[in-house]
Amino acid sequence: MRGAVIHAPGDVRLEDRPDPAVQSPTDAIVRLSATCVCGSDLWPYRGVETVSGPTPMGHEYVGIVEEVGGEVTGIRPGQFVVGSFFASDNTCEICRAGFQTSCVHRQAVGVDGAQAEYLRVPLADGTLVATPEVPSDDLLPSLLAASDVLGTGWFGAVAADVGPGKTVAVVGDGAVGLLGVLAARELGAERIIAMSRHESRQELATAFGATDIVTERGDDGVARIKDLTDGLGAHSVIEAVGTQESMTQAIRSTRPGGSTGYVGVAHDVTLPGEELFFSHVRLLGGPAPVRRFLPDLIDRIWTGAIDPGRVFDLALPLDQVAEGYRAMDERRAIKTLLRP
Amino acid sequence: MRGAVIHAPGDVRLEDRPDPAVQSPTDAIVRLSATCVCGSDLWPYRGVETVSGPTPMGHEYVGIVEEVGGEVTGIRPGQFVVGSFFASDNTCEICRAGFQTSCVHRQAVGVDGAQAEYLRVPLADGTLVATPEVPSDDLLPSLLAASDVLGTGWFGAVAADVGPGKTVAVVGDGAVGLLGVLAARELGAERIIAMSRHESRQELATAFGATDIVTERGDDGVARIKDLTDGLGAHSVIEAVGTQESMTQAIRSTRPGGSTGYVGVAHDVTLPGEELFFSHVRLLGGPAPVRRFLPDLIDRIWTGAIDPGRVFDLALPLDQVAEGYRAMDERRAIKTLLRP
Repeated sequence: MRGAVIHAPGDVRLEDRPDPAVQSPTDAIVRLSATCVCGSDLWPYRGVETVSGPTPMGHEYVGIVEEVGGEVTGIRPGQFVVGSFFASDNTCEICRAGFQTSCVHRQAVGVDGAQAEYLRVPLADGTLVATPEVPSDDLLPSLLAASDVLGTGWFGAVAADVGPGKTVAVVGDGAVGLLGVLAARELGAERIIAMSRHESRQELATAFGATDIVTERGDDGVARIKDLTDGLGAHSVIEAVGTQESMTQAIRSTRPGGSTGYVGVAHDVTLPGEELFFSHVRLLGGPAPVRRFLPDLIDRIWTGAIDPGRVFDLALPLDQVAEGYRAMDERRAIKTLLRP
Repeated sequence: MRGAVIHAPGDVRLEDRPDPAVQSPTDAIVRLSATCVCGSDLWPYRGVETVSGPTPMGHEYVGIVEEVGGEVTGIRPGQFVVGSFFASDNTCEICRAGFQTSCVHRQAVGVDGAQAEYLRVPLADGTLVATPEVPSDDLLPSLLAASDVLGTGWFGAVAADVGPGKTVAVVGDGAVGLLGVLAARELGAERIIAMSRHESRQELATAFGATDIVTERGDDGVARIKDLTDGLGAHSVIEAVGTQESMTQAIRSTRPGGSTGYVGVAHDVTLPGEELFFSHVRLLGGPAPVRRFLPDLIDRIWTGAIDPGRVFDLALPLDQVAEGYRAMDERRAIKTLLRP
């Protein structure tokens, strides 16, 4: 099959790779209908994360089940499935508490690379969720978004204790941040402040439910949020970048007793204990347990309640994967969908 | 009046100081029935915090209202009151959300020093809670505990999401940690692991409801907590020390999806963002909003449901305040009660 491999920063190639096969009786093989490039894929692409030898890329996927191992009972060939970037048994205590990305048996799905034609998914019963039937093509982008960025934005909102009557601020205008806006709206937030300085992203944020746009960053951004909230800060802040600046901005934009939900993968971030102590801010974040939310998210997409697929503003055939990365790196695209 | 003043590390003296007077119409003057030495008073006493000139000490207090300002309506002279170390209006949005120690009008009560005969308490209506009547002497230690250490241990437990069926670990065997054990029991925890290597403190922890004692610290302490929890960690961990080691121990003892409530005043603590991100641990801490809990805590003490005053294992007249500090510094006493 063909699959994307990164060789060095800026160097992603589509190559011939071995077809994946069932290795364990709990595996499934999925023929991918769509996959995409993640903001976190840009860390190695930009050289911020080390690339140590050729590495298959991609961890977001939807597609048709081709084959399952002998112990898989809940998923069968022919079904259209959405899965998360971590495989989970969905039965251990940690999974039952809703933290499937810390499942005691978790396995990274991205190891084999989902920017490809086929993908082996371990722990298929606990990881994959089938749609009611094979969807029409127009639903593919939204279902693919559920695989990671929607679920991640949703977790950011849940971790930030978003709810009715709350004022929510969102730091980061990538796909996750934008879908954090959508999640906040769906979870009943009264006011949603998107922090963005890019017009096309501001427009999408507004379409997803943002009531205010703040273009300032850093201390100025914090000051604007305070201005908009009687000097108190937002009840809930979703952090969707993962840098020191964005974490600081998020925590300082949160009112005492409020919550920061941080879902940008942290890179070289340290939090000062004293400031955090006196901030009275509740912190929860980490790799989103997308599996927790998938049945609900698929239902909302299936019924047309939400349209998260709008974050894909570029769709390319898989063999143009290199251009897909470039467009996101240069911020010409919010998120690139790839069709194998 | 007489009041305690710190001049340098290790040098606390009882001195003649001006009687406090009503300065603002929302003030109350309280004649103190009992006061005490806090674990946080040991930071300057040990030179860990700088002592820049003579400073009045103490921030825990119970006593009889002597006088109130013209705008005080809820508190009247003759009442016995318990208050928190931060004055709060108890009406602003932050107070109503239960974070009175971040009140938009908060003032530190300890500025004038509560290790004294009299104390001026600002924002009396929002800060002080009166008992049903003037209590008998035997209730004084428990009511005094409610002023800070009980309320702080209680907040630690609430911040750590303690509840029925949960396994709770407590890092720190000072008065706050021990009362965190008591709070966890009252809040319905199923299993309470106290981390202590001091026999007298282990005994009190057990009396307060600890079901297990762990004597190991640091990585070994974390490993023991994991051993006791099927490798997962505790659902809720109360951190009651405030050092880098104790925070690290607390966070690593918490299972993914669990919560660390940290109430030890943070000193030179930094939290690594990546580790926190992948830990899936929920963090909440800070100066305990004791005022939130006072009515409930006073009721539990008044009805004899709890006896938090047992943390005072040394009672001295106020003029022996220096010995009170020494005994705690040398860990001969858990907590010193002072009678003016």
